[in-house]
Amino acid sequence: MPKVEDEASNKQLIFRDYVTGLPKESEMYVTTSTIKLKVPEGFHGVLVKNLYLSCDPFMPIRMSRVTVNGFSSYTPGAPLTGYGVAKVLDSRHPDYKAGDFVWGITGWEEYSLITPTEGLKSIEQGLKKIQHTDVPLSYYTGLLGMPGLTAYAGFYELCSPKKGEYVFVSAASGAVGQLVGQFAKLLGCYVVGSAGSKEKVDLLKNKLGYDDAFNYKVEHDLDAALKRYFPEGIDIYFDNVGGKTLDAVLLNMRVHGRIAVCGTISQYNVHQSEAVQNLACLLFKRIHMVGFAVLDHHHLYPKFIETVLPYIKEGKIVYVEDMVEGLERGPAALVGLFSGRNVGKQVVVVARE
Amino acid sequence: MPKVEDEASNKQLIFRDYVTGLPKESEMYVTTSTIKLKVPEGFHGVLVKNLYLSCDPFMPIRMSRVTVNGFSSYTPGAPLTGYGVAKVLDSRHPDYKAGDFVWGITGWEEYSLITPTEGLKSIEQGLKKIQHTDVPLSYYTGLLGMPGLTAYAGFYELCSPKKGEYVFVSAASGAVGQLVGQFAKLLGCYVVGSAGSKEKVDLLKNKLGYDDAFNYKVEHDLDAALKRYFPEGIDIYFDNVGGKTLDAVLLNMRVHGRIAVCGTISQYNVHQSEAVQNLACLLFKRIHMVGFAVLDHHHLYPKFIETVLPYIKEGKIVYVEDMVEGLERGPAALVGLFSGRNVGKQVVVVARE
Repeated sequence: MPKVEDEASNKQLIFRDYVTGLPKESEMYVTTSTIKLKVPEGFHGVLVKNLYLSCDPFMPIRMSRVTVNGFSSYTPGAPLTGYGVAKVLDSRHPDYKAGDFVWGITGWEEYSLITPTEGLKSIEQGLKKIQHTDVPLSYYTGLLGMPGLTAYAGFYELCSPKKGEYVFVSAASGAVGQLVGQFAKLLGCYVVGSAGSKEKVDLLKNKLGYDDAFNYKVEHDLDAALKRYFPEGIDIYFDNVGGKTLDAVLLNMRVHGRIAVCGTISQYNVHQSEAVQNLACLLFKRIHMVGFAVLDHHHLYPKFIETVLPYIKEGKIVYVEDMVEGLERGPAALVGLFSGRNVGKQVVVVARE
Repeated sequence: MPKVEDEASNKQLIFRDYVTGLPKESEMYVTTSTIKLKVPEGFHGVLVKNLYLSCDPFMPIRMSRVTVNGFSSYTPGAPLTGYGVAKVLDSRHPDYKAGDFVWGITGWEEYSLITPTEGLKSIEQGLKKIQHTDVPLSYYTGLLGMPGLTAYAGFYELCSPKKGEYVFVSAASGAVGQLVGQFAKLLGCYVVGSAGSKEKVDLLKNKLGYDDAFNYKVEHDLDAALKRYFPEGIDIYFDNVGGKTLDAVLLNMRVHGRIAVCGTISQYNVHQSEAVQNLACLLFKRIHMVGFAVLDHHHLYPKFIETVLPYIKEGKIVYVEDMVEGLERGPAALVGLFSGRNVGKQVVVVARE
């Protein structure tokens, strides 16, 4: 019989029902259940205490009924799942022990029982043990997690960047963008970013090392804006938004330019994607345009960590997080991602380590 | 004093004046001048007799006043220039001698004096000596010329094809497309082509070895057509047309698919390019989409010839040419390219060897 003291109350953020388009806050609600803080016998899993949860642009896709683009739907009535940082409280898996910090796919709740059967082929694919705990652990939702690896793989592997090249990044202060800009600067590129507020533009110029930045919301003619910031044209475009920005960028790309398509966040809240008019530029300028997802680049993670950790410790790479405290504030944080309310990587703090 | 017998009458196809959009036949006219069949002293050039002239989709771009995409404008009142096959009658250049056959940039006229200053950095870049004359010399405007190298570089270098993959080619019976399909078949791919008439579809299926083919003009729903021909989706799309076809293809690409953008012939006669709606597929399916031009791949020419010549001699690669006789028919042939009037590579015969 389990002892009563093994049980804890477990606040959970429940996904109410399938949605069409972007979710509203009302489509999630907080409930409290109880959970035994032990892995049940016969389960080869781990029981974790969740610390930091990541708000990611792919999550609303999982709220739709249709399984699209390889994302399975969430289960109505169950907690959301997503990337997070957690502490192992109990383990029946040989690779993890109580006290370990892990990052990977977990539940939007205080405690999660994570087993190999929970939509993951194996725990190892979903949960990574955190080897370096001398940095803020929340970084494993961003700088040292999927967004970081996305920036690293997308920029270094797909954009073939060279010193002195002209680099443009959209959603430049976001979880991925802020890092792409810093990678580009470290390599000796000229980097300009776009973002959606004066505050973000200031951040890009004054904290994140961008050479220049502009607020796309006050630019009525994006083509003209790009011509102003890139009179010589753009060699590399790291695209986090798609739509009109991509269209204007195509007109300003240089011959043999490269476009890494990392996100189309501008298109998530429109039923019919904005059309792109200027695709013929791909031909005339012999442009490489590559859609990519970090899941194809997991093998680079060790190399990425080895590259980035020293930069963090030397202060050569910084990272801006937008932390909200408490699961209750999760829905607003997640929904806010799509109106650009967050400044930097959006994290929900469930508990501090 | 030059001897009278050195002079010949020289029929020329003259470009009348800059045009907007696609040219009409009336914008070119034939005139006859005389030419001395010797390279003048002090010129390090060659005097050639033109045999076959190539009608290429880029030529109308050169008829516009504005220099676009690296193509300089033609000179009003002067003959058109373009790719062709010619015989050297006289040479003051050490690399060529009378009797040599050459291919490269020449004039739309019976005889041309080709010098290093004629818009080419050097004759060698513009004119290649034909080493293998045991094939139809007209092939050097197509199968063994720029279109052939385009198909070779585009398919093998940019599409990373693998045996068993699903390949779709648009404008599939054209100068480039017919070869892409045959390369794909030789590699063990499944290949379907689209073209604009029943005659071309029959050619693709019965002569050019395509597994299947369809007439895009009778398909009201290109997406549905592609789903019929590619129930498993498309791994490689060799795009010669752009526009609506590309848009439908994007919906049918498989994960990790590759798109080589070789031409946008469907877009040449529209002022505002047709918009592409489905570009977000690039991201969700992690697609590589590459615009390319053969000029970046000239270094592959020797390897290309070495690969293709044996196939031609063994009958494993065939090539369909649409030959019209006489410079007078050049304007109609060139203009016809844009309504798909040609069946196979469009060649203008000025003289037989």
